[in-house]
Amino acid sequence: MGRLTGGDPSLLRRINSAVVLHALRATDHATLTEITRVTGLSRPTVEGVVEGLVETGLVVERAADEGAARRQGRPARRFRFRAEAGHLLGLDIGAHRVTALVADLDGQVLGTLSKDVDEKAPADERLERLRTTVAELLRRVGVSRGSLRAVGVGSPGVVETDGTVRLGTALPEWTGLKLGERLSRSFKCPVLVENDANAAAVAEHWKGAGTDSDDMVFVLAGLSPGAGSLIGGRLHRGFGGAAGEIGALHLLGRGARPEALLSTTDEPLHPLDEQAVAEVFAHAREGDERARAAVDRFVDRLVHDVATLVLALDPEVVVIGGWAAGLDGVLDPLRGELARCCLRPPRVTLSKLGAAAVATGALRLALDHVEEELFAVESTVTARR
Amino acid sequence: MGRLTGGDPSLLRRINSAVVLHALRATDHATLTEITRVTGLSRPTVEGVVEGLVETGLVVERAADEGAARRQGRPARRFRFRAEAGHLLGLDIGAHRVTALVADLDGQVLGTLSKDVDEKAPADERLERLRTTVAELLRRVGVSRGSLRAVGVGSPGVVETDGTVRLGTALPEWTGLKLGERLSRSFKCPVLVENDANAAAVAEHWKGAGTDSDDMVFVLAGLSPGAGSLIGGRLHRGFGGAAGEIGALHLLGRGARPEALLSTTDEPLHPLDEQAVAEVFAHAREGDERARAAVDRFVDRLVHDVATLVLALDPEVVVIGGWAAGLDGVLDPLRGELARCCLRPPRVTLSKLGAAAVATGALRLALDHVEEELFAVESTVTARR
Repeated sequence: MGRLTGGDPSLLRRINSAVVLHALRATDHATLTEITRVTGLSRPTVEGVVEGLVETGLVVERAADEGAARRQGRPARRFRFRAEAGHLLGLDIGAHRVTALVADLDGQVLGTLSKDVDEKAPADERLERLRTTVAELLRRVGVSRGSLRAVGVGSPGVVETDGTVRLGTALPEWTGLKLGERLSRSFKCPVLVENDANAAAVAEHWKGAGTDSDDMVFVLAGLSPGAGSLIGGRLHRGFGGAAGEIGALHLLGRGARPEALLSTTDEPLHPLDEQAVAEVFAHAREGDERARAAVDRFVDRLVHDVATLVLALDPEVVVIGGWAAGLDGVLDPLRGELARCCLRPPRVTLSKLGAAAVATGALRLALDHVEEELFAVESTVTARR
Repeated sequence: MGRLTGGDPSLLRRINSAVVLHALRATDHATLTEITRVTGLSRPTVEGVVEGLVETGLVVERAADEGAARRQGRPARRFRFRAEAGHLLGLDIGAHRVTALVADLDGQVLGTLSKDVDEKAPADERLERLRTTVAELLRRVGVSRGSLRAVGVGSPGVVETDGTVRLGTALPEWTGLKLGERLSRSFKCPVLVENDANAAAVAEHWKGAGTDSDDMVFVLAGLSPGAGSLIGGRLHRGFGGAAGEIGALHLLGRGARPEALLSTTDEPLHPLDEQAVAEVFAHAREGDERARAAVDRFVDRLVHDVATLVLALDPEVVVIGGWAAGLDGVLDPLRGELARCCLRPPRVTLSKLGAAAVATGALRLALDHVEEELFAVESTVTARR
């Protein structure tokens, strides 16, 4: 309660800094007079704060010859936020490839790089592949490692808040891996690890198919679907980070495992990988009856899993991503089933970001982290229950 | 952003009032000196605010002879929050009975009254029954209708934010009923309508089996289960108020309808009411094999429905309420299935509030509404993203 009455000058300074930074970031550049007007702070306060921000390198005075030509008299000094004062990484660790994105402090992507990796590669090899991808990307775009302010990582599996993978069957040696700790050795800034479907949900909400809704479910439709949910614009991780792990639904004994579901013989499909599944789908397209039946079963399962999620959460929008999103005949049965079992069926749409969704979401999480540090005042001042 | 710099004297007065009220409510009584110390406000500000609060009737000076005996000299004046300055109702509209709770502004329950109602009663009759229950309760506890500050209502069905029942198959003529509007005619204060399972979730979190967790799912286990979820301590209603409507899961075609599930013959159970179901359960206890099989199917279904909810949301605790919570052999299979399919199985526990859960939650929602008006400052000052 004491905050309203002031009393802590360093806190007040920090709040004022954040207010000014926030105002500057929302515009190309601004004069001290403009900052004073927008922030409601006094002129001397604004001058002191801007001076401090220039010292930290986050704000710079725009050179006089930048922009419009000088008018008569001495022009007012103009300041701008230096988005290039720091950088962020968004990383995606997948079964077949690793992807890295680098961006500035405005979240503007400066470059991206993907490298293939063997789906059977052990954890060390996969992480090494990620490290060389990052190193090459940073070199290409000319960003020094020291300028990184935060690194976001999207990974399959249930991820604890400390970055440990509690369970991850999609990648070899992934369960139990202290992924956050391992990657932290390569960076001096915070490394934030998130489940891949959760990261993708954040990405689609940021700049994909879910930008117009704060209540959104993203389904990463693969062999075993996972999901990420935004509730009121915020990621719902669940108490133990396991929310949306609907891939385990078949364990409830109401249906076959994916390897039986997708089999065109009496034996389970083996190995159960995307290559084998792609063949089943190809045969189905060519008219093979057993393959077509397998695909129908697979789509039925996906539809069922998504419907249970929708009944539990009642989102406004469901975004379907992952490789199964590209299959013909996924969206229509999904819409039909949801219309049948839901009182208010959600809008169903395909991912806009496709393969870039997870890395983009990881980047957004890194940006969130940095913004929370730089602009924390915003939520303090405007948040209401 | 302007708030930090002041500027709006009426807002500041309101904030200071809320701060003082909040401080007084947390204690039995306090002197002006104590209020000054706790709030960080100046003595003249506190004096002005307290005077204003005494005028509104929310605060009263404690009589000098109350409490401890006088010490030498003139004792400091002591003030206390007048919880009796207003009252709240919590109402539960069920299939077989209606219940009303009345409480003071501290949420202290002053009285409760239930009346039976025919499960086939049309909406008008059910609402009239509720009205007479409220009137009788208010008369008994000596609370005037004019002192009511808010009324909370728990009702079956999907409830829109304006208090209209979008869908409610549990009660006759319930779908489409403008419940909030109808009840508002009897009260001059706000009437807040909420789904019954949602209200019960709030109640168990307030003073039931879920007080130690902010991530909780409450399952109202009846013929068709419904659920309410708290995420981070807040009710998750879903985008259209339909979150947790897991009773519709059987529509996904993976299982029979309740009337087939519970039948001990080849015909669906008819009528499907609690009386008929109670008979099936009684026969099962007496060793009837077909009845036992029906009960097993019913429990299996409940377990499955709860498990899908847990996979979607990953709560810390699941509280089972409703009449099926009282059945033998519900909790153990539930724990077993959740352990099998969940990476971090939640704690499963029985409702502590039982039949009082819905009305208690409705009361809490009314209290929340009043607190938001009186003490809104708290969330403004302490909320952080």
